[in-house]
Order: sequence, then C-alpha cells, then structure tokens
Amino acid sequence: MSSIYGEKLKISVFGESHGAGIGVVIDGILPGAEIDLEEVRFQMSRRSPGGVEGSTKRNEADEFEILSGMLENRTTGAPLCAFIRNTNTRSGDYGNIALLPRPSHADYTGFVRYNGFNDIRGGGHFSGRLTAPIVFAGSVCRQILEKNGIMIGAHIYRIGSVKDTPFTDCEIPSELLKSLTRERFCTIDKEAAEKMKVEIERARLQADSIGGIVECAVTGLPAGIGSPMFETVEGRLASMMFSVPAVKGIEFGKGFEISEMLGSQANDPFYYDENGEVKTKTNNNGGILGGITTGMPLIFRTAIKPTSSIGKEQDTINLSEKKNDKLIIKGRHDSCIAVRAVPVIEAAAAVAITDILLSEGFFSQRED
Amino acid sequence: MSSIYGEKLKISVFGESHGAGIGVVIDGILPGAEIDLEEVRFQMSRRSPGGVEGSTKRNEADEFEILSGMLENRTTGAPLCAFIRNTNTRSGDYGNIALLPRPSHADYTGFVRYNGFNDIRGGGHFSGRLTAPIVFAGSVCRQILEKNGIMIGAHIYRIGSVKDTPFTDCEIPSELLKSLTRERFCTIDKEAAEKMKVEIERARLQADSIGGIVECAVTGLPAGIGSPMFETVEGRLASMMFSVPAVKGIEFGKGFEISEMLGSQANDPFYYDENGEVKTKTNNNGGILGGITTGMPLIFRTAIKPTSSIGKEQDTINLSEKKNDKLIIKGRHDSCIAVRAVPVIEAAAAVAITDILLSEGFFSQRED
Amino acid sequence: MSSIYGEKLKISVFGESHGAGIGVVIDGILPGAEIDLEEVRFQMSRRSPGGVEGSTKRNEADEFEILSGMLENRTTGAPLCAFIRNTNTRSGDYGNIALLPRPSHADYTGFVRYNGFNDIRGGGHFSGRLTAPIVFAGSVCRQILEKNGIMIGAHIYRIGSVKDTPFTDCEIPSELLKSLTRERFCTIDKEAAEKMKVEIERARLQADSIGGIVECAVTGLPAGIGSPMFETVEGRLASMMFSVPAVKGIEFGKGFEISEMLGSQANDPFYYDENGEVKTKTNNNGGILGGITTGMPLIFRTAIKPTSSIGKEQDTINLSEKKNDKLIIKGRHDSCIAVRAVPVIEAAAAVAITDILLSEGFFSQRED
Amino acid sequence: MSSIYGEKLKISVFGESHGAGIGVVIDGILPGAEIDLEEVRFQMSRRSPGGVEGSTKRNEADEFEILSGMLENRTTGAPLCAFIRNTNTRSGDYGNIALLPRPSHADYTGFVRYNGFNDIRGGGHFSGRLTAPIVFAGSVCRQILEKNGIMIGAHIYRIGSVKDTPFTDCEIPSELLKSLTRERFCTIDKEAAEKMKVEIERARLQADSIGGIVECAVTGLPAGIGSPMFETVEGRLASMMFSVPAVKGIEFGKGFEISEMLGSQANDPFYYDENGEVKTKTNNNGGILGGITTGMPLIFRTAIKPTSSIGKEQDTINLSEKKNDKLIIKGRHDSCIAVRAVPVIEAAAAVAITDILLSEGFFSQRED
Repeated sequence: MSSIYGEKLKISVFGESHGAGIGVVIDGILPGAEIDLEEVRFQMSRRSPGGVEGSTKRNEADEFEILSGMLENRTTGAPLCAFIRNTNTRSGDYGNIALLPRPSHADYTGFVRYNGFNDIRGGGHFSGRLTAPIVFAGSVCRQILEKNGIMIGAHIYRIGSVKDTPFTDCEIPSELLKSLTRERFCTIDKEAAEKMKVEIERARLQADSIGGIVECAVTGLPAGIGSPMFETVEGRLASMMFSVPAVKGIEFGKGFEISEMLGSQANDPFYYDENGEVKTKTNNNGGILGGITTGMPLIFRTAIKPTSSIGKEQDTINLSEKKNDKLIIKGRHDSCIAVRAVPVIEAAAAVAITDILLSEGFFSQRED
Repeated sequence: MSSIYGEKLKISVFGESHGAGIGVVIDGILPGAEIDLEEVRFQMSRRSPGGVEGSTKRNEADEFEILSGMLENRTTGAPLCAFIRNTNTRSGDYGNIALLPRPSHADYTGFVRYNGFNDIRGGGHFSGRLTAPIVFAGSVCRQILEKNGIMIGAHIYRIGSVKDTPFTDCEIPSELLKSLTRERFCTIDKEAAEKMKVEIERARLQADSIGGIVECAVTGLPAGIGSPMFETVEGRLASMMFSVPAVKGIEFGKGFEISEMLGSQANDPFYYDENGEVKTKTNNNGGILGGITTGMPLIFRTAIKPTSSIGKEQDTINLSEKKNDKLIIKGRHDSCIAVRAVPVIEAAAAVAITDILLSEGFFSQRED
Repeated sequence: MSSIYGEKLKISVFGESHGAGIGVVIDGILPGAEIDLEEVRFQMSRRSPGGVEGSTKRNEADEFEILSGMLENRTTGAPLCAFIRNTNTRSGDYGNIALLPRPSHADYTGFVRYNGFNDIRGGGHFSGRLTAPIVFAGSVCRQILEKNGIMIGAHIYRIGSVKDTPFTDCEIPSELLKSLTRERFCTIDKEAAEKMKVEIERARLQADSIGGIVECAVTGLPAGIGSPMFETVEGRLASMMFSVPAVKGIEFGKGFEISEMLGSQANDPFYYDENGEVKTKTNNNGGILGGITTGMPLIFRTAIKPTSSIGKEQDTINLSEKKNDKLIIKGRHDSCIAVRAVPVIEAAAAVAITDILLSEGFFSQRED
Repeated sequence: MSSIYGEKLKISVFGESHGAGIGVVIDGILPGAEIDLEEVRFQMSRRSPGGVEGSTKRNEADEFEILSGMLENRTTGAPLCAFIRNTNTRSGDYGNIALLPRPSHADYTGFVRYNGFNDIRGGGHFSGRLTAPIVFAGSVCRQILEKNGIMIGAHIYRIGSVKDTPFTDCEIPSELLKSLTRERFCTIDKEAAEKMKVEIERARLQADSIGGIVECAVTGLPAGIGSPMFETVEGRLASMMFSVPAVKGIEFGKGFEISEMLGSQANDPFYYDENGEVKTKTNNNGGILGGITTGMPLIFRTAIKPTSSIGKEQDTINLSEKKNDKLIIKGRHDSCIAVRAVPVIEAAAAVAITDILLSEGFFSQRED
C-alpha cells in the first residue's frame, strides 16, 4: 500500500469509511500561506453526498479539525493534518459484502491483497469517502495556486449520451473556471445539465447507475514546467487521477481523437501574439509537449465508470462457502458518481500541479 | 528532469539522438536471470526504423554493448548498463530547427525548460530514438516475466479509420501474444494490416502523417498485485506510458466507452471456474479493481498522435528573430509512429510490471 | 520539509508541541499483525517525561487514539494513524523565545527556513515531543519484528565520564535486550546507572545539562539484508537516527575506534560454527559488510548532545531588535536527554529495520 | 540493490572492477553549467591509485568518455553519462576469493545477497574502484557549487595515532579548502603528513593496513537549508557517506566528544557580527541545528577502517567445501585507504549538497 503521494508536496491519506474517521497529512507545504477555511469547507460540501442529484443520501457534514500545521489561518510549513470524524455510519447495510464481493468494486481485490484483514465495512480504506481528504488537500493547494495566477476548473463533459459544451482549446476565461468551482452540478451549458439529470434519474429508477466523463482545465501555467521522459506533466497528473475511484482512462488535449487525425490537422502551429508571447493557434496537445507545459491551457478528460454499487441483483461469489452466489446491495448509492467526481478531480489536479511546481522551485522565486 | 523511472526496478535512460549514443542503466534487477541477448536484439530491431512501412529511412542497427551487470549471459544483480553508439547522424537536416521550433514537437518547450542549452540536434534527449533503451530494458524484463508465467503483447488497434480485431476481454491465448511479439507490423487481423498500410501510404504521399491506437495485454498476473490510492497499477502504468513520445491518452478495460454504460452493463460478475479459481464473466475493468489486479487479463490502450514532423510547410515562430515564420522539415520521418510504438509500449509495460512485482516482494518467493 | 520517512514502510509524523496534538501515519504496514496496545503504551511511557531522573517535569500521559488502520487489535494493512492530543501546554514559559533564539536549538534555523511562520511555541514541530509518534510507530514495528525473531534493545553507553558495560560484540542474549526494553533508565551495569544519576544531578544543580552516548543492538537479522552503494543498512539507519533530536554522530561496530586499528586487528575472521552457520570471531564491523548484514549482531552508537535548554544565562541575539542580547530560559527541562533518547532510538531502529526488510520482500515469505 | 542516489540530482552508478568498465549517469543537473573537464580529470587522478603513499600499485588512468549530456563543455540539462573503460585487470590474482571470502570485505555478504551470481572478480560492483564515478559526479557538482560561493575541502584528520591540525570551527578560509583540493596527501600540517606516512609504511612492511579519520568542511552555505525530521542535512550527508566503502562512522561538529560536554560548554551562542550577519561564537554543532544549516561552516568527520585486504594469512571459510580455511591475499593493496578516501568524501559531499540545494529550489533564484 501506499496512500502517500508526491515528491515535494506529499499528501498522506488515512482512514476508513466506518472507522473513527478519515484524514490527510500535507507535508512540504509553503509556510505563510493564508488559507480561507470557509472556502475549504465549501469545496468539501461540493463533494459531500446530499443535495446533488443522483448522490447517496448518507448526509455527512464532513466537518474537519485541523490537528497541526496552521497558526492563525496561515500555514506554518510544518505538516498540516486535517481529520474528519465519522459520525453517520450504518455498518448493517454492508453485512453481506464480506462474503459476497460486489462486482466491479475493490472488495475482492482488497480481500486478496490484505489476506482478508482489511476493514471491509463500507469499503474501508477503498471507500469513495476517502476522496474527502483529497478535496481538503486540493482546496488548500488551489488557494496557493490562485495567488500565483493559476486557475483550475472542471465540468461534466458527458453523462451517458448527453454532452456538455467542451472547453475551448486556446482561451478559457478565468471567470468560467471560477464559476464552475462554485457549483455542485458543473456544466458549461445549463440545458445540458438538465438533460444529464434526466439520464441519471432514469438510471436511478431502474436501480442502476450510469457513467460519465469529466473535463478539467488548468490555466496560468507558464511554459517550461515539467520534464521529459519519466517526469512528464501528463504522467504525474495521470498517476494521481487513477487514485480517484472509478477513473478508467485519461486523455490530454484531443486525446484518443488525435489518433484519427493527420499530422497537418493535429499539429499546433506556433505564433507570437500581440504581446510578443508565444502561443499556438490550436491546442490539440492540451498544453503539453514533450512532457512540458507550453503556456497554453492544460486540458484533460477522465472517464468515470458507473457506480459499481447498484440495486439490481447481481451474480457474484461467496468467499466463505467458495461457491457462486447472488447479491443484492441495499443502502443508498450515487446513481452517477461522475457528478461528485468533479470537485475531486479539481482537487487532485491542484495537489499534483502544486507538487510539480514545488519540485521545480517555482515558488522559491515568489512571494506567497 | 528525471530520466529515472521506478521504485525497486529503476531504469536510468541517457543519451541524445546525435551525440555519442544512447543507453540505459537497469538498477535493482534480480540476480541470476539468464538473458537471451539475441532475443533482445530482435526486439530492438522491431523498434528500429527501416523495414517497417511508414517508418523513417534512417537505418540504424541499434547494436548495443553491455557495459556492466552481466556475466556469462546472466544478470549479476548489479546495475546492468547497455550502450548503443550512434553511427548514422546527419545534423545538417535539422539545421533550421534550432530557430524554428517544429509544431507539436518538444523543440520549443525544451528550449524554455533548459534555457536554450539543450542539445537540439535531432531532438536530442527528446528524440524518439530514446525509446531504444526502453526497449532494451523491457526485453530484459520480459524474459524474466515470461519465466514467471507473465506474457505481454500489443497490437495496432486502430490507424486512422481502420480498426483491428480487439483482444477478447477474458481469454487471451499466450500463443497470440507470443506471435504478436515476433512481428514488425502487429495486428491480429492480417487484412486490417493491409488496409492500415494503405492509410499510411496515403498520408505519406501527401507529405503528412497519421495517428493510431495501440492495445496492450498482460496475462498471467495473479490477483492481489498493486495497491489502492496512490500506487494503483493503472497509475504506475499510466505514468510510464506517457514517457513514450506521442502518447496522448490511456484507458483500461472499456476505458472511455465505460462512461456511456450503465452499471448493470459495466459491472463484471464474479464466478468460480471449473478449477475453483475466481474469474469475472466480463472484463470491462481491464483486470484491475481498486488499483489491484483481479487475475483477469490486464488490458489497456494508448492514443498515439500523428508524427509531428511532416513534410508540409507549417506556420511556426523564429526564436532568434522573434517573429512569425514558415517551416519546411526536410529529412525522412515515419508517416505513422504508432507502428513502431508497439514494441516500445510492450517494453514500457514490461518494465512497469516488473517494478510493481518487485515492489511487492513477488519474486522473493520464487526461483528464477 | 519532509516529515515522511521510508521506502515501503513510510511514516508521516505531524504535530506541534503546543498545538492540538501530535501523531503519526504508518503507511505500508503488514496486514493482520496483532498489536498489543498495552505494550505500546508502556513503551511510550518510557519516553514520556516524569519519573525519569533528569527529565522535564511536564508530565503528559501521551495517551493516543487510533484513528485508522486497526480492527480488533489487528492491523488491516491500511494506513495506521495514531493521534496524541496535547493536554498540558504552558505557552507562557516560552514567551521570549520568539525573539531570542535559544543557543543550539532549532529556533533560529527554523525561523530562517520557514520565513518566520513556523509555530515556535515549545519548539513547535521541532520539539523533542515529536519523538512520541516515532516511539508509537517503533513499538508497533518492534512487535512485528519480534514475531520474526528480531530483537532490538539499547542502553546508555556513557553519560559524561561514566561508562556502562558495552554489548559484547558477538553474542547478545535476547533476554538482555528484552530486559533493557522494560526499563526507564537503561544500563547493563546497575552500578553505572547510579553513578550516571549522580552526574546528571550535578549538572542539574548547576542549572546545566550533560550529554551522553546510546548504544543499540539488533539481533536475529539474517545475513544478506541490505544493498551496496546507496541503500546500505548503515546509511538507512543513519539517515533515520539524525531525525532524533540532539544526535550528532553515529558509528557502527568499533566505529571511530576502528580508525586507530590495524587491518589484522580490525578484520573479522569467518568460521563455521557447530551448527554449520557462518559466524565471525570478532564483530568489529558491527554486523554489516559492504552495506549488507552478516548475520552477526548489528551494533551502533549515537552521540547525544547535552539538552540545549539550560537554566544558565546565555548570550544570544534579539531577532526583532536585531541586536545582541541575553537569554534566561525558564521552565523545566531534562538535564540529560540521553536517558529518554534510549526508547526513541530503539523505536527509530525498529522503523528503519522494518522498512529495510519490507523493501527486500522479507516478510512475503513468512506468515505473520 | 540501489546504486541510485538523490532526490532532485540523482546519480546512477554502474560497473564492475574487472568488467567492461565503470560509469555514472547524473540526472537532474542544471542546464548551461560550464564544466572544466581538465579539473575533473585532476580530481579523478587524486583518487586513482599510484603516486600516493600506501596505495595499490594498479595504475589505471581512469580516462573517461562523456557519453551524453554535454555540448561544447556545457551541461545540456539532459542526463550526463560518463564511462571509464577498464584497461588493466588481472583476474588471476583474485582466483581463490570466490571460495574463500576475505574477512571484513563484502565477498560473503555479496554472495548471500545475490545468491552467488554477483561478479566477484576484484570485488565486482563492491570494489573501491566504484568510487571513481562518484568522484566524477562530485567534481562536476563542485564546479557548480563553487560558482555559487560554496567551497568543499577535506583532509586526513588522523591516521593511527598521528593527528593533523583540525579545522577551526568558525572560520575556514576558502584558500585553505582550495589548496587541500590540489593535493594527493591532504593535511593542514605538513609535518603531520610525514608522520602519517611513517605509520602507513610501518603497516605496509608488516603486510598489514591501518585506519584513519577524514574531516570535511563545506563553507558558503546560507542559513536555512535543510529540513527537520527526516530530511536533515546530517541524515542526507550520512546516508551518502556510508556509500563510501570502509566508512564506519560519521559525526558532525564536536560529534561524539559533545556527549561528554555540559550544555553550557556545548551550546553555541548567537551574535550579530560587524556586518549584521548572524553568527555563533563557537560551532560545536558543526553548522547544523534542527537538521538545518546555520550559515556557519558545516564540518563532519568520517571513520575509515583499515583496508580489509591485507597480506597476512587470515582465518576464513571455504564456501564450496563448507569448512573453515586459511586465506592469503596476493596482489597489491592500499595500506591506508583513508588517504585516497579524501577526494571521494569531498565528491560525495558535493553530490549530496547539490542535491539538497536543488531540492530546495536554491539554484532557481540564480544565474549559473
């Protein structure tokens, strides 16, 4: 296991869905950064269930306590630990999961990996609830990034067959990104949001779930950040994104679509803009060339699978009796986890980008 | 920069396209593994240009010298260094690239990242030629994996609009994977290969290039390999794959397609097979759940962009005169880099999988 | 900053002396290990002030709460987090330290490193109190090591001019190590303990402090653990030991004394013992050759400086007024920190040894 | 095994004493640094045998080839690889070592660690010859450090009973450090050098060897470099120093001597000097407090054991016949390895200090 991420900014995530609580230690943070904890709370509420269409009804306040690393709302530079005590756990709902692993969930692989000793109540350390500490860490990092002119925002790009307006490749207004981060059901096109909700409701009524795609953009990154070979910006972001449960793919710029293009279509021509800054006319590469930022918006999409916990009866195995069996999962679950994945992906991106920038000495030249 | 990859099996890649040569140090390799260097040479010839449709005509033998770490064809356990001396370099062809960065290539980002000091001849350390050391390392690792029952193979899944037969999700014969690794133009359906070659030739005649998708499978992995959160098998493979030039996306199992599915379609039901082994009826998750292997085939696809070096005139900037300019790239280049990417992706997967297995103490229970 | 240690077993330490509390996340721990929390509490009481001659009178129970990673007294394999809430803090005593950095303490370097934003109350994250989480982690690790036949014990080798009987090089009984770990003032020779207490009392009466040397042994390690070059057992232990406040040196086997010996005196001749096991007649190398264990007892000593907080008036600077000044430190402090360093060094060794063993796949061949 | 060191500046050392050669890859180096290769050659000659009293007579030029990473005497920022081809190997001399491990050498532990597959000719990857790549890397780093005002120098502090004048704690002239790095038998007191040579010759005539202590200083480091807990400057330097063969201990400032001092003697009082800079009146802590530099000279000493290869008959085991045996080592060996350890320790310090500075973004604020 490693629930520790990062090179210079390291985050260490701990906790279980139905244990004492969940938390995160942020190691290597810049000293002296003023953090608006109300804003952090707001971001955590975007992730928390309740209020969002298609989300589980377990309504947990996700109220955190700062255990270390802050003094008078400023980071001290020492490890910042935040802890969220679990308050609303119903172990009973998950009684038969121990023996009957849920299809497409980590019950079985966790059982094998930890020789049956892992805490299986509510998914334990594998629970989607463990994304709350990531949102905490990401919100802290995002506040530092914003002071340095770097904006991050994401939206639901697709749910089932309904698509939102994508980000324009070359010019993404800060106001758009900012406004997306104030919402709980994030789309650029409000009509698309309504259609998506219909899709989700349809799945829910069938005791089913549905997948989606989340698109994320990072603007304000200077050119020249990242490294070739094994420390590419893509690789570091991808490694982090697959930590978000249910992510099954990631693509940058045109992504898989670029594989159908000709070079003359896909290549992004350089030009000097009116301010003498280097830009590209298109941004099919999503702001990264050779693993290094170009200064254009960094754009990526992640594929989110449908929530694996569904109400329908499913085939599975009975691990104690070693026979094939049937499973009906009770309890409430999100019908479309992609909705609540948006703030998690933003947060995960904020953590990864902050780590990359710290690794390259970016902040040492600046005041915070 | 970090051109070093890995946790327990570390590879350190060095060299430039038009310098003295290129090479790799493999650190942490198992002692006593017998390596067939002829097989390594064959794998390197699959990657090397020449002989493959659509590949650059620079015909370099890629003959390597073992500088350390082997004795009588066995690994000693000490770092294994292989060096490939450059023999056929024509710096002249790249004369104007210094000032005129090629669109969608790393010329510009490398220039910014290294303050103009990077070796730009032939792309320098950013050159696709740097994949040769990865193929060396991957071939060595693959031989160790095969002795432990783990097979890796890849094929061209798509070029332009032509698609090959995909891997079947649940059952991939070892013979198929083995046969793919003997070829230079790897497809499962031989007719698809012919159609792809037509697409490539069409692009070439237009002084253009074309993209593609490569699909890769790993079989024989036991269940329970990998870790949740930040050391997922997906994350570690993805981080490595974005080190392969031109890769713009990666997806596991159904990948982006899963985002359009319902949970009841996407979930992979468990069952005990006739031998009492746990299997899934479908494999939409590509052999990984919660970041950990299920024991089913691990399947992923990577999107490969069209070669950025094309013969057509392109818009770019002139870095010395700080003005917009035009660029015509001379020299020979691959019309479809996806073809030669196949052995590179296999090799990169072999390195990443070996590292994951070593990290989890897999080989310490076995004889090699 | 990195308050995270380790390769496979990672510990992340957080907290400040006068903040909410202190804690540790242990990442990568073996699943299913039964942990005796009473024993952990006992080890933490050995480190805690109060009861030990020469220790600060701040009597803190160091009662911990397990926040994650355990179920029914067994590790689950998920990150194990323990938190110790601060209950007895008197910020007033340290009022003038902010402006007047204590000589030989981290006040000044912490101020520069963290741009004045670090929490200076009681030393903050630099406080010796941060060794409590290390003792927690070490106690957990030690219980796992003991089940695998590996024993760790330490004693006060020297305080001022008084020396204890050293460990015999080649044969250290498990009972001796075990008995040392039950004590608070650890010596092999009980008379030496009495003389040391006299030295400490003499320093205390002068409002002064005194240094010491701690000797530690690890027995039961098989031969062949560790690696040459940059992952030597010495290097990994040393890196950890300098994390213990006040440590200014480390030596293995004969250590600095070996520098005065002839090769014919220093070399440890090999022989087969009556059971056919390889042993050495002497153990001047302290159980390590070429960075790798020999199977003989691993023995090292660390130099501990006198507590830097003393009651005597000292010269220092006034950082706010930027002038030279005088400082009198009030409050109670240990007169000899070496006494309470013993369980910390044992714990630090237990963490480092467990990490080395995990890194080399040691436990994967065993039942826990 | 890991023969890779570092966080941001990584060095990967490869090669064997009697294989094709030895080398190093330096990853993460600053781009654009002008390197004087003649100076590198001179530093490597200081380490090489021949010419130095008490050194082995194997006279190897240690001529290196730059395989990558430099262009017109400047670093490009890409991995810098240097290779030293072995030219003068006499495997015959070591014929019986395979079966009869040399006491206090890594023959036996290497045999166990690598299951008998390691290259034992001349010690293979464990050979002292592997320090040559470290000297190469250190010389390159030192040139970068010197341009930033950081000087490193070392001298033989002690051989047997003969002691050199130690560094003064608080004021070490750059000229002294510079002059030490021009010598092959480095002492501050030239008379001490003569007496040391007598001690070495006495050991040599007895077919024996003798140990020593090397003292090293780093000046020009600003205050505030390093981190508390697990990334202390002491820990990072110590971890590197134990990679130098024969090192059995390391101490900073007063080191083990501080353990006999009172706090009032050991504490270093702060003061503002005439330029308003913070200094300490004494430097018993060797320029480090709380793991972080104070701005005073960083001073440490390493204990070097006597060369383990001696001419006298020694007891050992016969691994093939599994019985006790006698060994006489033929061939020429250094009578006092501490002499040639001086440039190695300087180089190792230069690598470690450069890595620490890069990790903390030190160079990103400067021109190189």
